[in-house]
Amino acid sequence: MTAQSDARYMALALALGRRGQGRVWPNPQVGCVIVKDDRIVGRGHTADGGRPHAETVALAQAGTTAAGSTAYVTLEPCAHHGQTPPCAEALIAAGVKRVVIATADPDPRVAGKGEAMLRAAGVAVERGVHDRVARRDLAGFLLRVTRDRPFVTLKLACSLDGRIATAAGESQWITGPQARRAVHMMRARHDAVMVGAGTVRADDPSLTVRDLGITRQPARVVISREGRLPENAKMLRDGATPPVYLCHQAGADVSAWTARGAVSLPCDVAAGQVDPASALAALAAQGITRVFCEGGGMLGAALLAAELVDELVVFNAGMIIGAEGIPGLGAMGVDQLARSPRFRLDRVQQMGPDIMHVWTRPDLDQVLDWRQSQA
Amino acid sequence: MTAQSDARYMALALALGRRGQGRVWPNPQVGCVIVKDDRIVGRGHTADGGRPHAETVALAQAGTTAAGSTAYVTLEPCAHHGQTPPCAEALIAAGVKRVVIATADPDPRVAGKGEAMLRAAGVAVERGVHDRVARRDLAGFLLRVTRDRPFVTLKLACSLDGRIATAAGESQWITGPQARRAVHMMRARHDAVMVGAGTVRADDPSLTVRDLGITRQPARVVISREGRLPENAKMLRDGATPPVYLCHQAGADVSAWTARGAVSLPCDVAAGQVDPASALAALAAQGITRVFCEGGGMLGAALLAAELVDELVVFNAGMIIGAEGIPGLGAMGVDQLARSPRFRLDRVQQMGPDIMHVWTRPDLDQVLDWRQSQA
Repeated sequence: MTAQSDARYMALALALGRRGQGRVWPNPQVGCVIVKDDRIVGRGHTADGGRPHAETVALAQAGTTAAGSTAYVTLEPCAHHGQTPPCAEALIAAGVKRVVIATADPDPRVAGKGEAMLRAAGVAVERGVHDRVARRDLAGFLLRVTRDRPFVTLKLACSLDGRIATAAGESQWITGPQARRAVHMMRARHDAVMVGAGTVRADDPSLTVRDLGITRQPARVVISREGRLPENAKMLRDGATPPVYLCHQAGADVSAWTARGAVSLPCDVAAGQVDPASALAALAAQGITRVFCEGGGMLGAALLAAELVDELVVFNAGMIIGAEGIPGLGAMGVDQLARSPRFRLDRVQQMGPDIMHVWTRPDLDQVLDWRQSQA
Repeated sequence: MTAQSDARYMALALALGRRGQGRVWPNPQVGCVIVKDDRIVGRGHTADGGRPHAETVALAQAGTTAAGSTAYVTLEPCAHHGQTPPCAEALIAAGVKRVVIATADPDPRVAGKGEAMLRAAGVAVERGVHDRVARRDLAGFLLRVTRDRPFVTLKLACSLDGRIATAAGESQWITGPQARRAVHMMRARHDAVMVGAGTVRADDPSLTVRDLGITRQPARVVISREGRLPENAKMLRDGATPPVYLCHQAGADVSAWTARGAVSLPCDVAAGQVDPASALAALAAQGITRVFCEGGGMLGAALLAAELVDELVVFNAGMIIGAEGIPGLGAMGVDQLARSPRFRLDRVQQMGPDIMHVWTRPDLDQVLDWRQSQA
């Protein structure tokens, strides 16, 4: 195999893995391609809910032709006996002679052990093909394991002057149908959709993915210090399936919501609000790896101020509301420009009558390089 | 000539004409191409300051080969004796046998007369090739003649949440060098750069075009109801060359500025501010056809609320300032979303670390279709 074909097959494995985004938590969304004599004989990606693993699916497809093949796996194969035998063992048993890995698994039950198990069995192992892309794809899982928090995407949909509503609170239909559809697509690619209590009280959103034919809905997360929330909120009407997590101050009475199926996650409080780092840690402990935050402005500002936003997605509609309007982000306590949170442009595009621009934290690659950042 | 080659030559004439944007006021920036036997024998565009006209330049270049040629002119040739004989006469005298015009001139001294003069002399005339593009290019001149106001571009350079400064007023270097260079290019393509008094007091800008090697600087315009402005403002230090126009309430004492060369333009007052429509009318009367407004937030909001913004250019830097920051646009008195000013996306692009998006008023083509809108 040339380095060029290694890169090509790994790119395919990454594309397969991406299909699992938002659908496989608490597991990572891995992709696997099995190649023999320069022909693809097996493909797989982590299935909904996290099982079976990508390697299992691809090996089943390859059958006996897996003997003597090369397997491209986006994440180091697992080495521990969990609900199923480890993937490293399965690859060895199938007679795979070479395994190419995009990036290592930081899970202490796996880290380096999957690779070592393969080598011990005489399998050739190469690691680091599309390493950076794999780390970005698997950012949610990597952050959950190495930083005890999920990957956080913050969405902001506002007028050209950064407003989300008139002073009177009128806010419906700021962006057009193409942008709303893109938002539903983004929800589907995250494990959970998160909003603040104000948004629940003002908009009563269901936070489900609609009109995309998906088979697995993201979880819902509400951040509410005191838990003062409408008892008949839309997101409780389907029996809290998918799950509804309520992040609140320890001791707050959230019985009305838990009685209807919501999961109570007591959190620390900082500066009079639920500490966003504490809420994210609680979600990571539940297995959530990717969170899509849709506001409101106070929650978004708190996440930004705590440097907990990895990706920022901004939609701007071609309208002006003016300074009396409600801002899309609340107060941040930034007194010097040098301390403002900064983001690096990933892409910008037209989206129907609106525009969408996506920004990432400038240090994302360093944050995801867990060997370096933990060193 | 085929319709296809007519369109091609007119596109070239339009491109030539555009070179004059910001440099030819009070005249329109016209382009002219003279073609004989499918070869270009003359090109011209309106020269700095408005003279000589495009046709004069192109005919001089063509010399005697103009006889029997086709002339492509972006605006109906003038028919009146001003400082020079009319261009229609010059085209006839040169023996041009066919004139293709993009759009008609609404100036009552010309409207239809240039075309009639040509026809009377036996010249074949065709009008309407790239009519819409020509009207957009010549929008400043058309609006000055038909609506007594210049074309208005409003620039907004702000953080992702629509802020231009921290609460403490710190505002330097929000956008990067590429965006700043683009702003200087835009200044150069307008007849005048306009700011409110608050911007002069806070930033003391010179409002000149720098580092682009241009030969003609735009005029400067300050809107200040009471004329309370620093006497040693930067824009007065070059002896008010290019001109400095001060739009103020009639009766305000602006002697400190006029003594240093500024031109006083008394205006009406509405809602406690200089009425933006009145200021624009005063500028149009001075011959200004294209204005580039760079803020501040109150002036921008007043122009938007009065539906006087034709083009809106937004630069966003990848930073967040938060709700305590100073908004890029002031209060607009919009209480219903349905009454918010709306804009149509023209283009969006990356600009170094920032993004630029350009929007136009949705009814721009109707506004520029002066025959319809005056009917």
